Amino acid sequence: MQNKKKSAIIKTMDKYNTKPPAGTRDFLARDVRFRKQIFNIIEKVFASFGFEPLETPAFERIETLMDKYGSEGEKLIFKILKRGEKAKSGEVDLALRYDLTVPMARVIAEYSNKLPKIYKRYQIQPVWRADRPGKSRYREFYQCDIDITGTNSLMADSEVILALIEVLEKLGINEFTVKLNSRKILTGLIEVLNIPKNLEDFVLVSLDKLDKIGIEGITKELQGKGIASEVVQSLLQQNRDSVKKILTTSTKGLEGLQEVQEIQDLIGDKRIIFDPFLARGLAYYTGSIFEIVSGKIKGSIAGGGRYDNLVGMFSKKNIPACGGSLGVERILLLAREPQGLFKNIEILATVWDKTFRKSSIALSNKLRDKGFIVETYLENDKFNKQLTYASKKEIPFVLICGPDEKAKNKITVKNMKTGKQITIYEKEVVNFFSFPALDTQPQPIL
Amino acid sequence: MQNKKKSAIIKTMDKYNTKPPAGTRDFLARDVRFRKQIFNIIEKVFASFGFEPLETPAFERIETLMDKYGSEGEKLIFKILKRGEKAKSGEVDLALRYDLTVPMARVIAEYSNKLPKIYKRYQIQPVWRADRPGKSRYREFYQCDIDITGTNSLMADSEVILALIEVLEKLGINEFTVKLNSRKILTGLIEVLNIPKNLEDFVLVSLDKLDKIGIEGITKELQGKGIASEVVQSLLQQNRDSVKKILTTSTKGLEGLQEVQEIQDLIGDKRIIFDPFLARGLAYYTGSIFEIVSGKIKGSIAGGGRYDNLVGMFSKKNIPACGGSLGVERILLLAREPQGLFKNIEILATVWDKTFRKSSIALSNKLRDKGFIVETYLENDKFNKQLTYASKKEIPFVLICGPDEKAKNKITVKNMKTGKQITIYEKEVVNFFSFPALDTQPQPIL
Repeated sequence: MQNKKKSAIIKTMDKYNTKPPAGTRDFLARDVRFRKQIFNIIEKVFASFGFEPLETPAFERIETLMDKYGSEGEKLIFKILKRGEKAKSGEVDLALRYDLTVPMARVIAEYSNKLPKIYKRYQIQPVWRADRPGKSRYREFYQCDIDITGTNSLMADSEVILALIEVLEKLGINEFTVKLNSRKILTGLIEVLNIPKNLEDFVLVSLDKLDKIGIEGITKELQGKGIASEVVQSLLQQNRDSVKKILTTSTKGLEGLQEVQEIQDLIGDKRIIFDPFLARGLAYYTGSIFEIVSGKIKGSIAGGGRYDNLVGMFSKKNIPACGGSLGVERILLLAREPQGLFKNIEILATVWDKTFRKSSIALSNKLRDKGFIVETYLENDKFNKQLTYASKKEIPFVLICGPDEKAKNKITVKNMKTGKQITIYEKEVVNFFSFPALDTQPQPIL
Repeated sequence: MQNKKKSAIIKTMDKYNTKPPAGTRDFLARDVRFRKQIFNIIEKVFASFGFEPLETPAFERIETLMDKYGSEGEKLIFKILKRGEKAKSGEVDLALRYDLTVPMARVIAEYSNKLPKIYKRYQIQPVWRADRPGKSRYREFYQCDIDITGTNSLMADSEVILALIEVLEKLGINEFTVKLNSRKILTGLIEVLNIPKNLEDFVLVSLDKLDKIGIEGITKELQGKGIASEVVQSLLQQNRDSVKKILTTSTKGLEGLQEVQEIQDLIGDKRIIFDPFLARGLAYYTGSIFEIVSGKIKGSIAGGGRYDNLVGMFSKKNIPACGGSLGVERILLLAREPQGLFKNIEILATVWDKTFRKSSIALSNKLRDKGFIVETYLENDKFNKQLTYASKKEIPFVLICGPDEKAKNKITVKNMKTGKQITIYEKEVVNFFSFPALDTQPQPIL
């Protein structure tokens, strides 16, 4: 009884809860414009490398997403109930997109005849994860992926990193480090240090937490798995140079070192540094791995690597692949605001009285056609109220056409900053505002 | 047993079904680019009127969407299962966006302090409806809405129609008719023809089907509700002029006629015609209603009207509103392809052999920085294969740097159309390709 009452109250409250659902956001004008401009910059860079855009549906068949993200990941998938009579069963048949890689793998299998052998695609779309919402942790957030499938050339690994670097620079983010490693180096280390092969994945997941739990935490975790403390120590005291030395006995390890060296050489950017402990938690990486970090923000702002055994999952054949993901939501916090973003209304066409409404609409539209952002005053208010409105909204120019102007086919243009006004022939108005384009800020002529 | 077997087989088949879910689409490069350009044109027009963009989350609380779309609409809502332990109960707490109006009403209630009194917003986002998929009927499709809330001025009704007309023209769609009517005219007609008030909604829904079921069908439906055949006849034989005559005795009807007349006058576009039978099924309209039809496509390509009692639903106050919705998915079928859309790769940087990889990457990137779309050949293939690749992909220019060029710090540029080639200093390459911007098609100089 008590419970019933409580749930009834909560229901009533919910009815008037007008916030967006937990972990999601409404984007009002300023945010939409800012995000869109940032996405446009990113897309332009990817396109300049010849990456093609791809968009997939918000939901996939439940079977497409199951058994892809591990048990922890799977718990976070938003599942969609069957419709109609079947809804009562509580069964689901669809689920919201959890990442952009699985949909890409499906697309590659489905359109193999249409897509080039080496398929370079970018995809910028929201994904949904039922994570506990928190500060900059959302349940609906954009991912931004580039991938090159169909080649195992290190040129591809290099191009992915280079494209991400170019994006960061175009966004005005110059201070960052690209940590580069290879899963082969980690495998080699585990081999030469005689860590049991079956613990490899565990060790990688543990190393991935270095930033969070520190050397002590990792030591504890690895010893907990029965790895001798000397072994743990000799693993954790490695550095760039010592790794190069001890890996001389591991074919796999040497291969990894060679790869890292080549990628560094090919890109030739000093911000790329070899980090033998970079692990990246995901088990599916097979070659190079990287993460881009910026001092200004916690965690990485981009990451990726080579994963040769994943993209073929729906195609039933091996498709080598490498790619990277840009942490766009984080980057939006770092990026400088693009210029000319917050287009204000440029001109307000006032309406003298009801009989002037039609001419005011027509004049506004003539100016819009030439690329101006023009608001026609909609309500039947006194002239002074219309001027106050323009002031408040910081609209730089106001058009006035009263009986005096009308009689002479003229229009008064008022500069709201200077207060100056000038009366000109109506047919001259368009020329008077000689702005070249919608994107340009108005240049006061008065 | 039989059933179990069958379902097991279906499950296995599903596992390899790589098509997008029923009623949804994958958009490969060409489609993404085309749609994006069309959306950009639409947004630019709306912005030129001072409409602001809005984006809301893909899902809303289930309570936000319930009891808003009628029982038929509600069946089509995609509902999201609760997560974790609660998933087993089959209960839902979220649902995918079904339209853009309810989210806007929620936003207006939530941010009333931030938004202007007269709020003009546009919103272009996908919605999801579990309709039976069919030819151009999708379960995931974009809606494109503009609305003006907070004023009951007919200037607003006019502006909505005008903005939609402007969009169509900018998209190259000039042949269309705007059918205009007012719910008040329909109410007046029902009043003067002595049709029982309680059948008003039924009559409107029936009239809305005129195109589909014809006069006969409507006659049958109305008579079925007990409306006398003379009454049905006198309703259906009305035309523009007769309606104006018989409505002289209805205050409401006269008000509607006056409104239609004013909107026509204010916009002054001959393509706007008064259609006394235009009903628009939705019960929530209170004033002007309109639909835009084009001979080239069945059904309407836009529609809308005034609905003064809806937007305030979450704000607990009356908020007058009018708006329109552009059938973007249909319009995409009608719109002419924007120019300069299908940007091909402009330049292929070949790679002579492994030792030339680094310089090829660096040269490519220098050109990208100047706005060119440059592909670096990724694989370790023979030179002829690289040239064939450029031919096949119709890449107009190829850069070649072999040992001869290298020794002299030069690069060979090959025009793939003419077959001509020229060898220039490497530092001159950027100037050689004197294209002004990424969007410009390359002008062969060779």
